[in-house]
Amino acid sequence: MAQRSEITVDESAARACMAALRRALPPDTLLTDPDTLRTYECDALSAYRRLPLAVALPHDREQVRTILRITREHGVPVVPRGAGTGLSGGALPHPRGVLLSLARLNRILAIDPRNRTARVEPGVRNLAVSEAARPYGLHYAPDPSSQVACTIGGNIAENAGGVHCLKYGLTVHNVLRIEALTADGETLVAGGGGLDGPGYDLAAVLTGSEGLLAVVVEATVRLLPLPQCARVLLAAFERVEDAAAAVAAVIAGGIVPAGLEMMDNAAVRAAEDFVHAGYPTDAAAILLCELDGTEAEVEAGIARVRALLAEHGATEVRLARDEAERERFWKGRKAAFPAVGRLSPDYYCMDGTIPRREIGRVLTRIAELAREHGLPVVNVLHAGDGNLHPLILYDANRPGELERTERLGHRILEACIEAGGTVTGEHGVGVEKLDPMCRQFDEATLRQFHALREAFDPRRLLNPGKAVPTLARCAEHRAMHVRGGRLPFPELERF
Amino acid sequence: MAQRSEITVDESAARACMAALRRALPPDTLLTDPDTLRTYECDALSAYRRLPLAVALPHDREQVRTILRITREHGVPVVPRGAGTGLSGGALPHPRGVLLSLARLNRILAIDPRNRTARVEPGVRNLAVSEAARPYGLHYAPDPSSQVACTIGGNIAENAGGVHCLKYGLTVHNVLRIEALTADGETLVAGGGGLDGPGYDLAAVLTGSEGLLAVVVEATVRLLPLPQCARVLLAAFERVEDAAAAVAAVIAGGIVPAGLEMMDNAAVRAAEDFVHAGYPTDAAAILLCELDGTEAEVEAGIARVRALLAEHGATEVRLARDEAERERFWKGRKAAFPAVGRLSPDYYCMDGTIPRREIGRVLTRIAELAREHGLPVVNVLHAGDGNLHPLILYDANRPGELERTERLGHRILEACIEAGGTVTGEHGVGVEKLDPMCRQFDEATLRQFHALREAFDPRRLLNPGKAVPTLARCAEHRAMHVRGGRLPFPELERF
Repeated sequence: MAQRSEITVDESAARACMAALRRALPPDTLLTDPDTLRTYECDALSAYRRLPLAVALPHDREQVRTILRITREHGVPVVPRGAGTGLSGGALPHPRGVLLSLARLNRILAIDPRNRTARVEPGVRNLAVSEAARPYGLHYAPDPSSQVACTIGGNIAENAGGVHCLKYGLTVHNVLRIEALTADGETLVAGGGGLDGPGYDLAAVLTGSEGLLAVVVEATVRLLPLPQCARVLLAAFERVEDAAAAVAAVIAGGIVPAGLEMMDNAAVRAAEDFVHAGYPTDAAAILLCELDGTEAEVEAGIARVRALLAEHGATEVRLARDEAERERFWKGRKAAFPAVGRLSPDYYCMDGTIPRREIGRVLTRIAELAREHGLPVVNVLHAGDGNLHPLILYDANRPGELERTERLGHRILEACIEAGGTVTGEHGVGVEKLDPMCRQFDEATLRQFHALREAFDPRRLLNPGKAVPTLARCAEHRAMHVRGGRLPFPELERF
Repeated sequence: MAQRSEITVDESAARACMAALRRALPPDTLLTDPDTLRTYECDALSAYRRLPLAVALPHDREQVRTILRITREHGVPVVPRGAGTGLSGGALPHPRGVLLSLARLNRILAIDPRNRTARVEPGVRNLAVSEAARPYGLHYAPDPSSQVACTIGGNIAENAGGVHCLKYGLTVHNVLRIEALTADGETLVAGGGGLDGPGYDLAAVLTGSEGLLAVVVEATVRLLPLPQCARVLLAAFERVEDAAAAVAAVIAGGIVPAGLEMMDNAAVRAAEDFVHAGYPTDAAAILLCELDGTEAEVEAGIARVRALLAEHGATEVRLARDEAERERFWKGRKAAFPAVGRLSPDYYCMDGTIPRREIGRVLTRIAELAREHGLPVVNVLHAGDGNLHPLILYDANRPGELERTERLGHRILEACIEAGGTVTGEHGVGVEKLDPMCRQFDEATLRQFHALREAFDPRRLLNPGKAVPTLARCAEHRAMHVRGGRLPFPELERF
């Protein structure tokens, strides 16, 4: 596949850069063996694969700085990587670049129970923060489903969410302070101890910037008290629209559940077959609504949610009797993706966000589109956030089916935009959503994104070709769209 | 006073610009009469006064665009202004610039009760949003004390807070979408309908950017349900340190009060004399802790807070018996500034933020500094946020007292930085805190701020000389600091 690069790296510059890195770093810090490199050829969006020039595995911040200074000197791109659990190809290597793994910067530097903060290196796993905070009765709230493996640095790059972000916010709401190195290797401190700070909100800009602005080398995150009590309600509905209306009613009622998830019938059946969660397999849709807080708060909340669910046509509302049942209810939800994976040789997980009031309408539209394209779609939603994960089932070995999947995916994202939503909820843009970004944003905004990026990295060496499409690509994509919209797996021609 | 300008505007360019504006705009849109201009010579930081070339009062977005295009063409600065209630001089006119008042863009475009949002123009008053939302049982949560007068556009520029931002967040947490015009007059849309969005977080950057990046012409803000029930506890302490420890304990207990305010003895006595709130005037400090939510939630919260307050040495804890007493308790707090104003010919309201755990230590340090400088300081705190408002009492007519006030203010802000805090909480930087910004940030961060600004406004025509000090100024300030630190009222020499 012919690849034109956003930046041009000639071979002699690449060679000189590798030689300089070898001189400056201990041998175990630079991997170039092709078999080893293969471990890093993709992230969790494995449809895209690439070998980098080398993988750098620095032990500390100073080595990160050295790598950035040497690569900059030679004009060689750098792609930062956390645990590689990203779903949009944000950590896909650059063929003429260094893949910079932050995995070894994995120390928890401090847990401050009084101020309820944790200071950690970027390679610390999300769940490890909560584990370290647990003795103090605290935890780190954002909980992406990959939380066993994914790292805080990667969470910041993608502005990761999770089941509990409805109540406790996304990563951006839980990161207080970031220390990062710019493409020049200079230290940048963003955010601070207070609720607000002077100066531009660099912490918010860095969060979700997908590794294009700076490399995070330390973060101070907010810890929250473990809730005294958490209980979950399961509600079954005969119509998907009723479940959607119930979601809107709960939120409109001023209730802030710790989680409010929705699964359609196909997802319910797949999960039930797989982990025997005790779900009602005849329901058109179920909701899982968790409330947490003190006993009194939770009890009061449960009563109100129960009433609202009944009012909106729930045919059954079950309160998990004990912790074991509560965990079983969640197990089904958490196993939904692998459970769906058992239904079909391949599936493509979409990620879009819509205003909550549009959930019913957009799900109906997705069902229509699925019929039109002759492909089954299973829906799992962070319903409280309006974050959809339609899973398109297909078989890559059947001729034309991948292309049909791509077209259907494209139409689903368009439906999200038309409903006033966005083409990504929590998985980021990476390489996957570059073309949908052209549909989402007008030229002025895209130009502003590029200007902002260049304010951090004028030579565009950090993770080039990701997150923000070039205007040329968008011009081309719009033409492509008229021709039938090959999306979201176009050739990576502008990478 | 000799004023060197960050940007140079020669007189003929200014004249040509005025002529072009006059041709392009209806007569009532451009004010140049010196007496009229005087109304706009300052914002609520009235120590700084300046006349602009002209005041523009556009009726709509297209006139704003016209003004921006013409001023840019002639290289003339533009200072956007909301209601002029800002406390850091952010809306201080530029002597060779146009003051752009957004006061006439004051329409509420839509209240969407189902999606719980309001779409408003920038000149809509903060309180007017809540008034329009009230029939739907909703309100706009951020409530700066100037909320009767201040506008949403100004709130966005300053990232305004308020008593309730502890629970409901600052402006940045309550603004979903911003439409702004760049210095080129181009429309920029930031944020959107969903919880997260793709692309860099332009909405977060614009919020708190003090009018240096773009001019807000429309905003969609989040509306929250009016709480079913709100009750307030008043606690008295014999020692300020005990009150500070109680604040930390309440927050550490995982309780999120709707407001958690602290006043020291001098503030309590001043407020009591002024509005007869029923405060215990012999207390070293009082706390006001409001809880809101459902009846059950509030009752449970009150019980827990009561216990914690008692544990931390409260000598008296009173629950407001009814709505009238609740309002009286708050009336005292809200009247604290004017009440202090009765004690002294002049007072200077400081604004800094520190980690909550440092409150006791920093208040002790402020008392020491006040003694050293021979000036009384009265403390009012958004204690739950760690946001201090020390009020320095002085008499500008006594020789040397203003200078002593400035020095003391400077030392207080240094104490905030030393405690891990920031030099501004919610009042912004404007012109007032330019020098403290040099203390707060290192050169790399300041350079990044400037680069970010230029990514929006390469010619630096929007509100030049505010919010971010030049590196030259910082170099000079550091020298100044060694010579004794004339702060925070230096000459505006680099304006």
